[in-house]
Amino acid sequence: MKKHNFSSGPAILPQSVMQEAAEAVIDFNGMGLSILEISHRSKEFVAVMDEAQALTKELLGLSEDYSVLFLTGGASSQFYMTAMNLLDSTETAAIIDTGNWSAKTIKENRLFGHITVVASSKADDYKHIPKTFELPDNAKYLHITTNNTVMGTQFQEIPTVDIPLVADMSSDIFSRKIEVEKYGLIYAGAQKNMGPAGTTMVIVRKDMLGTMERQIPTMLDYRTHVNKGSMFNTPPVFPVYVSMLTLRWLKANGGIEAMEKINIAKAELLYNEIDNNPNFEGRVAKADRSLMNVTFMATTPEAEAKFFKLCEEHLISGIKGYRTIGGFRASIYNAMPMSSVEHLVSVMKMV
Amino acid sequence: MKKHNFSSGPAILPQSVMQEAAEAVIDFNGMGLSILEISHRSKEFVAVMDEAQALTKELLGLSEDYSVLFLTGGASSQFYMTAMNLLDSTETAAIIDTGNWSAKTIKENRLFGHITVVASSKADDYKHIPKTFELPDNAKYLHITTNNTVMGTQFQEIPTVDIPLVADMSSDIFSRKIEVEKYGLIYAGAQKNMGPAGTTMVIVRKDMLGTMERQIPTMLDYRTHVNKGSMFNTPPVFPVYVSMLTLRWLKANGGIEAMEKINIAKAELLYNEIDNNPNFEGRVAKADRSLMNVTFMATTPEAEAKFFKLCEEHLISGIKGYRTIGGFRASIYNAMPMSSVEHLVSVMKMV
Repeated sequence: MKKHNFSSGPAILPQSVMQEAAEAVIDFNGMGLSILEISHRSKEFVAVMDEAQALTKELLGLSEDYSVLFLTGGASSQFYMTAMNLLDSTETAAIIDTGNWSAKTIKENRLFGHITVVASSKADDYKHIPKTFELPDNAKYLHITTNNTVMGTQFQEIPTVDIPLVADMSSDIFSRKIEVEKYGLIYAGAQKNMGPAGTTMVIVRKDMLGTMERQIPTMLDYRTHVNKGSMFNTPPVFPVYVSMLTLRWLKANGGIEAMEKINIAKAELLYNEIDNNPNFEGRVAKADRSLMNVTFMATTPEAEAKFFKLCEEHLISGIKGYRTIGGFRASIYNAMPMSSVEHLVSVMKMV
Repeated sequence: MKKHNFSSGPAILPQSVMQEAAEAVIDFNGMGLSILEISHRSKEFVAVMDEAQALTKELLGLSEDYSVLFLTGGASSQFYMTAMNLLDSTETAAIIDTGNWSAKTIKENRLFGHITVVASSKADDYKHIPKTFELPDNAKYLHITTNNTVMGTQFQEIPTVDIPLVADMSSDIFSRKIEVEKYGLIYAGAQKNMGPAGTTMVIVRKDMLGTMERQIPTMLDYRTHVNKGSMFNTPPVFPVYVSMLTLRWLKANGGIEAMEKINIAKAELLYNEIDNNPNFEGRVAKADRSLMNVTFMATTPEAEAKFFKLCEEHLISGIKGYRTIGGFRASIYNAMPMSSVEHLVSVMKMV
């Protein structure tokens, strides 16, 4: 009865991870205690936090210049925390606007300094990723949203600029290789490609911090969490634990290189069907299609209704497009098996 | 092999809650999906969030004047969010200092307005709760920490003042009846008496909000979460779910009135042993002893060593005092059964 879960997030996690997480809710590591009731300062949980950070560093190839934090609050909290920590009130941040998450970044960054939107695809309803832009002379960083979960676009080439990138990678972290040295800061809510809702990863190059005069509440200052290894206060124990299990699974399955290959194959299979099946059409510019969130429309209302019905009959879940957009969206994160994408394609052929 | 878990937090939860939570990690509500992978906008999770808020209102007898929020970030984030939302830079907050959590409140509140510490038991190493104080004429609210988890003190009588109380109830929410109308805002990290780490409850009287000019990032503005029912962004799904299960359990077991009676009985049994066993002594003023965190010392180093050893042999966990304090601390939150307190007392008698 297990469904094929194409939800955009919170999203599918590996089956083995969910099994192990369920067991830990009853008895963690043979402690005779649940993962939900142990002290975050127990050696058993400290080991979980340490392993989560170490796996992140190993999988992404991070040097000692970077710290890995597991915070709370979701990526939405990073929209302001980035600027609060990195941007002095007289400084300027450059932002590429590729959708509604970028728009929120712009709004919240603006509370703390000057913002220049260097490129936007808004006029095109965010159906492509802008390729050309000019940075203001004094920009401190360039913010990008690497993957737009809503529209289904993704930077297939990350801009090369002479200032640090600050990137929201919530929906494609760990899905493909990255050139780490381009980034000053990366953040990602866990609930797409890394774990359950309730924790957000921040990867920060340490020299980005402490360059400002602003007084920041202790909990909002990245340095607090860098200095205390994300254990200044009680972290979200279970979400961090499940994220760690997912990273372990990722490593055991060949790491990011192996995952990227499978992700490309899954996306190719699905986009191929969209392009060749007369009942469907893609939503966005082909060059900018997301490997994570595949968005498409039915070509007729009849095909749309029939496909929704077929999905329900064939245990396909979470296929509905974003509430303001409509159509369909199949999110095929790391944990989505090829067999489920094949199943989806076979159901598309029935329309 | 199940241990008796006296940890101060994250802390014991009802056995039935952990069982149900583990099942939901595999299959939630017969959906064929894990609670970890469903959309927070699914009708199934919306029902969870609604029920968590409704149960809180019912159990505490909250009127429509109050909103119940489930946020992330822990109580540590509320140390600054309260003042950021409630205190203009020209206004004054009064604070009673009863321990290190109050001290953090003072530090973070000070970033946003004027602070008057109206009473403190610091000189007495926080071994009692100050009873007399004078409010400055213009104080906007009085902040109290109702229970000091570290030292094991608790307000047995909540101050009656003519301004709203803002209260950190992280370690005694839902443990006893409260006079709701005294409070303008209550906050509580879940991981003591309500659920696992990863969510924080805020109960706010709506007329406390919107009285200031300060620009607040969207995610830090309580009004954002009041207006969106804690669903502005992806909430910490699993911690909220487990909190809701715990509130359901609380209601099924007679609600707060029944729980308060049992809590008093558990604490009496344990304090009685401390007072009558020559190997132990209490840490704090008897009138201010916490019903939640029972702190005590051994009278000799030999008794201390022997008791720690006995606890290990008899599956008693989490009994060590706070790292800066030493001695013992038995946290006996709602979910701690009387039978475990009896077991602890029987082991104390063996020393």
